[in-house]
Amino acid sequence: MADKPKVAITMGDAAGIGPEITAKCLAQPEVYQRCDPLVLGDARVMNQAVALADVPVRVHPIESVSDARFVHGNIDVLDYHNIDLENLRMGVVDARNGDAAVRYTKEAGNMCLQGKVDAMVSAPLNKESMRAAGYTYEGQTQILGELCGAERYGMILLLGNLRLMLLTTHMSLRDAIENVRRDRIVSMVGLAWETLLFLGLESPKVAVAALNPHAGEGGMFGDEEIKEIVPAVEACSARGISVVGPIPADTVFVRAREGEFDLVVAMFHDQGLMVVKLLGFGSAVTLLAGLPLIRTSVGHGTAFDIAGQNKADHRNLLQAIKVAAELALRKRR
Amino acid sequence: MADKPKVAITMGDAAGIGPEITAKCLAQPEVYQRCDPLVLGDARVMNQAVALADVPVRVHPIESVSDARFVHGNIDVLDYHNIDLENLRMGVVDARNGDAAVRYTKEAGNMCLQGKVDAMVSAPLNKESMRAAGYTYEGQTQILGELCGAERYGMILLLGNLRLMLLTTHMSLRDAIENVRRDRIVSMVGLAWETLLFLGLESPKVAVAALNPHAGEGGMFGDEEIKEIVPAVEACSARGISVVGPIPADTVFVRAREGEFDLVVAMFHDQGLMVVKLLGFGSAVTLLAGLPLIRTSVGHGTAFDIAGQNKADHRNLLQAIKVAAELALRKRR
Repeated sequence: MADKPKVAITMGDAAGIGPEITAKCLAQPEVYQRCDPLVLGDARVMNQAVALADVPVRVHPIESVSDARFVHGNIDVLDYHNIDLENLRMGVVDARNGDAAVRYTKEAGNMCLQGKVDAMVSAPLNKESMRAAGYTYEGQTQILGELCGAERYGMILLLGNLRLMLLTTHMSLRDAIENVRRDRIVSMVGLAWETLLFLGLESPKVAVAALNPHAGEGGMFGDEEIKEIVPAVEACSARGISVVGPIPADTVFVRAREGEFDLVVAMFHDQGLMVVKLLGFGSAVTLLAGLPLIRTSVGHGTAFDIAGQNKADHRNLLQAIKVAAELALRKRR
Repeated sequence: MADKPKVAITMGDAAGIGPEITAKCLAQPEVYQRCDPLVLGDARVMNQAVALADVPVRVHPIESVSDARFVHGNIDVLDYHNIDLENLRMGVVDARNGDAAVRYTKEAGNMCLQGKVDAMVSAPLNKESMRAAGYTYEGQTQILGELCGAERYGMILLLGNLRLMLLTTHMSLRDAIENVRRDRIVSMVGLAWETLLFLGLESPKVAVAALNPHAGEGGMFGDEEIKEIVPAVEACSARGISVVGPIPADTVFVRAREGEFDLVVAMFHDQGLMVVKLLGFGSAVTLLAGLPLIRTSVGHGTAFDIAGQNKADHRNLLQAIKVAAELALRKRR
């Protein structure tokens, strides 16, 4: 039993689906077979979520990790007692809930850094509630980046044995093309490489997707490959990174799925997201890269429109918990 | 037996893999269960291909469709006797083979237009050999376009029940963005619509993919959706076409695969080809759109590097034959 990794799950925004999907996940015996889970949140909110989800488990409020029992049927909740339960309205933006959610994330991050837990998993936080509480973070990634004092970090999308990073995300395709620049690619490949090593992969291999069709066909269909991507790949190789590319986007992910590459750097949002959604809608988990801790999160938001109605699908969070446990185990070995 | 559609298969370039994959396909009893196939080519080349493929069938040279037996075990070959067999060198560019291949394509097109056959299927032609013979066609599509006197035609990629058209193909992503224009989209959606009706679909539905992530998120991530795609979709709707879009590229193909749309217009090469290759590498068949005939073709080329070595995979051609037979049957009903 002592071999199982400890995994801290933050319940996210109290008015969102976080608490109910957390309750559903921790009702699964397999979670306790794979790890020792505990929740960071508010015990009364988790009690309410257990009743809503109608799962046969009890909430066990604790004050420190050492109080946790890690036994299926109990949900150990590190209780911050910071939600105003009487005034909690599901699906509504509320600064108090935003403030509380930020705290769970920071505390879980600290517990990882202090070695009290082996990994953390984030249920969704509501960005509007967070901003209403006065925070200017873009999301949980930035909260943890600041906590770790890191300048360079990012997200990896995990879909089975396929790992993706996005060179750019929410911008126009025109702007994304302008951002296909040597320095950015070098930085992201480096981050990918470090993360794969941090995760315990022995001889990882990174691939860089092309921007243009047929990887530009020798410059006939665009020159970003020649001017930016090839020099970036060469610079990374010179540093000892095992990296190949540019490889045409219509084949690189097929080859990665077959195990040829451990991670693919996609040049823009849809290039990566098309793969994620075509191969496994809903099952992609995000992993923080570049920080000295293991943290996975769900691909969806707080879903205020269905929060508190026991309609939310918990499988993405379940997958995030399994992946965190697996990564923590591998890292330990 | 009279109910089976007649399908003409052009053997393509004699020095490529066309003859051998044609021989392998016509050795399959299921082909004869689905259609009455005949080959347009050179009987001696087909004889050689049968020997190479080592399949238990005989070549039956014929002079007109009425001579065909359409019995499994015989390959009826409409014999143009236009290959210089003694000087035929596999895998080598040769103007005579290019000239011969163009002829098979034109003859098959004419047979379709005259109603002698119900559909045609093209094995690959070698573009270099064709150009060496003095032709300036881009490929078989243009040969048939000219034959039909059509000004507007295109290609549909078929992958199971998923149908795709590409707004642009071989150009840089920057140029592809410049080509996301209202007039082009209106034209392609119209072509898609007419083809779906021609194929006998009763109430087809077309979807147009977005260019930018999240379909531009209301203009925040690019304005091509607002300026070009939305007006195009509205113009098509006003003409009575059932069309929706722009739909984000990372969801539109997932929805199409589930049967929500009969055809998706992709904005650029990789947007469509990523789908094809992720969902079924090698099984995509191309269908000519906008001409008054049914013509399918393989997604690959003449593969001169392996031609004549009995290494070529015939399954893509087999799929093209099956699809042509199925479309001809549906059209007849």
